[in-house]
Amino acid sequence: MTYCVAISTREGLVFCSDSRTNAGPDMLSSYSKMHIFHPSPDQVFILMTAGNLATTQAIVSRLEQDLEAPDSVNLGSCGKMHEAARYVSNISREVQTDAQNSVNTSGIDTSASLILGGQIKGGEPALYLVYAASNFITDSDETPFLQIGESKYGRPILDRILTRTTSLEDAARCAIVSMDSTIKSNATVGPPIEVLIYEKNTFESNHHIKLDEEDQYLRDIKKSWNDALKTSFSALPRFDWEHRSSITPLQAVGTPFPNSQNDNPGSGDAG
Amino acid sequence: MTYCVAISTREGLVFCSDSRTNAGPDMLSSYSKMHIFHPSPDQVFILMTAGNLATTQAIVSRLEQDLEAPDSVNLGSCGKMHEAARYVSNISREVQTDAQNSVNTSGIDTSASLILGGQIKGGEPALYLVYAASNFITDSDETPFLQIGESKYGRPILDRILTRTTSLEDAARCAIVSMDSTIKSNATVGPPIEVLIYEKNTFESNHHIKLDEEDQYLRDIKKSWNDALKTSFSALPRFDWEHRSSITPLQAVGTPFPNSQNDNPGSGDAG
Repeated sequence: MTYCVAISTREGLVFCSDSRTNAGPDMLSSYSKMHIFHPSPDQVFILMTAGNLATTQAIVSRLEQDLEAPDSVNLGSCGKMHEAARYVSNISREVQTDAQNSVNTSGIDTSASLILGGQIKGGEPALYLVYAASNFITDSDETPFLQIGESKYGRPILDRILTRTTSLEDAARCAIVSMDSTIKSNATVGPPIEVLIYEKNTFESNHHIKLDEEDQYLRDIKKSWNDALKTSFSALPRFDWEHRSSITPLQAVGTPFPNSQNDNPGSGDAG
Repeated sequence: MTYCVAISTREGLVFCSDSRTNAGPDMLSSYSKMHIFHPSPDQVFILMTAGNLATTQAIVSRLEQDLEAPDSVNLGSCGKMHEAARYVSNISREVQTDAQNSVNTSGIDTSASLILGGQIKGGEPALYLVYAASNFITDSDETPFLQIGESKYGRPILDRILTRTTSLEDAARCAIVSMDSTIKSNATVGPPIEVLIYEKNTFESNHHIKLDEEDQYLRDIKKSWNDALKTSFSALPRFDWEHRSSITPLQAVGTPFPNSQNDNPGSGDAG
């Protein structure tokens, strides 16, 4: 599996991807899932890929080939980000159809999903999620991020922290924490973690870092987060009965089944 | 959807379930997914259910009917928790087969998964997850919890906090936080949240609480957790370049595509 997340804030875009791919449990290997295209000084595109590795490699290779064929439609010929998303989704559909035909009845899942982000001069930075079915969506003010792959483990922290006004560095840290939570809970997502920060209107890769397992910053951020969560957790409000008795609170207030006691530690709403 | 989690610690068991069921987006309703059986003073069973509501209701109803037929095999006739798990898995298989036959070709998913926990005098408290396929597993020292339903959003916090030595109240708070994260990220999981704490060797429902959306304790714990996460987040270690420049750090160090800069904020391992 894979986990990739992209975040769009007022200041720019943040991309974060893991590097683990697996075909079965003993075919684990490491591939970058973040691809940068810079067809002209006024255009920057970042593509992150999830799904079948042969398919995603074929998609990236098609995008590169098209760029080298000057008369063809390619990323460089797109004047708007929406146009680029449509072009990438078309390539994705074509490559997936070819892949499906070539593996035919073997039952292999050849699908792929993509996140395309970037900026073209004259327009705002934009993000698109291209589904395996090749339709695509963009982010929103309420949900200023897009995810592909193993996205559920790392979602709660994004939901809690991110807004359009989050700084790019905070957004990058949030992506790293989201990635770390996913890696902790799912063995098919793994380091190195790639992070790319794109600051609006620079048309440059402002920071593109690769954090492997032993990286000191990654270790620091993991430790800091883990310790802080434990501290936060131990500071959560106590249940009512924990105040009532300090030694063996459970035995003190337990009542027998089947008319089990409906303790209500808060207001009077319990049923 | 549904989210249920059960935790097994040295002190006993904790169960937590949401109450939302949906058949399509406009058939949202609220049903308890936690069922308590107390066939004798020496036996306590808690069953949590996920999946097709008709199927899970039929399973619970079969367990109740069997208890009323004194000569039949039922929860009360089980001398060991493993035996109870096997009995419940058999009932689950039978009911699911019936359900599948009755809806036949309509394409409705009638499957159900279950968590069974409890204690029978002479044995230790135990937890089992009965899959939709009716095979079942128990928990482990490394992963002292079991989940059914929409389990991924709420998993990272369980992975970070829970061990066998966690107190029952901390385990219950961890389950509530896990549930809250799931509710925040997934609209098909919703309150009221039911929590049941079972202290080992009591054969009693020590605390069985229902927290609805307006419950003061639930609001307190949500607010405390949310605030603590934000504080923890803002205390995470900064990137290298944030120390280097305090005004516009990104512009200061950005380098152009396509030879994007591989900043490494930590040790020298970045590639």
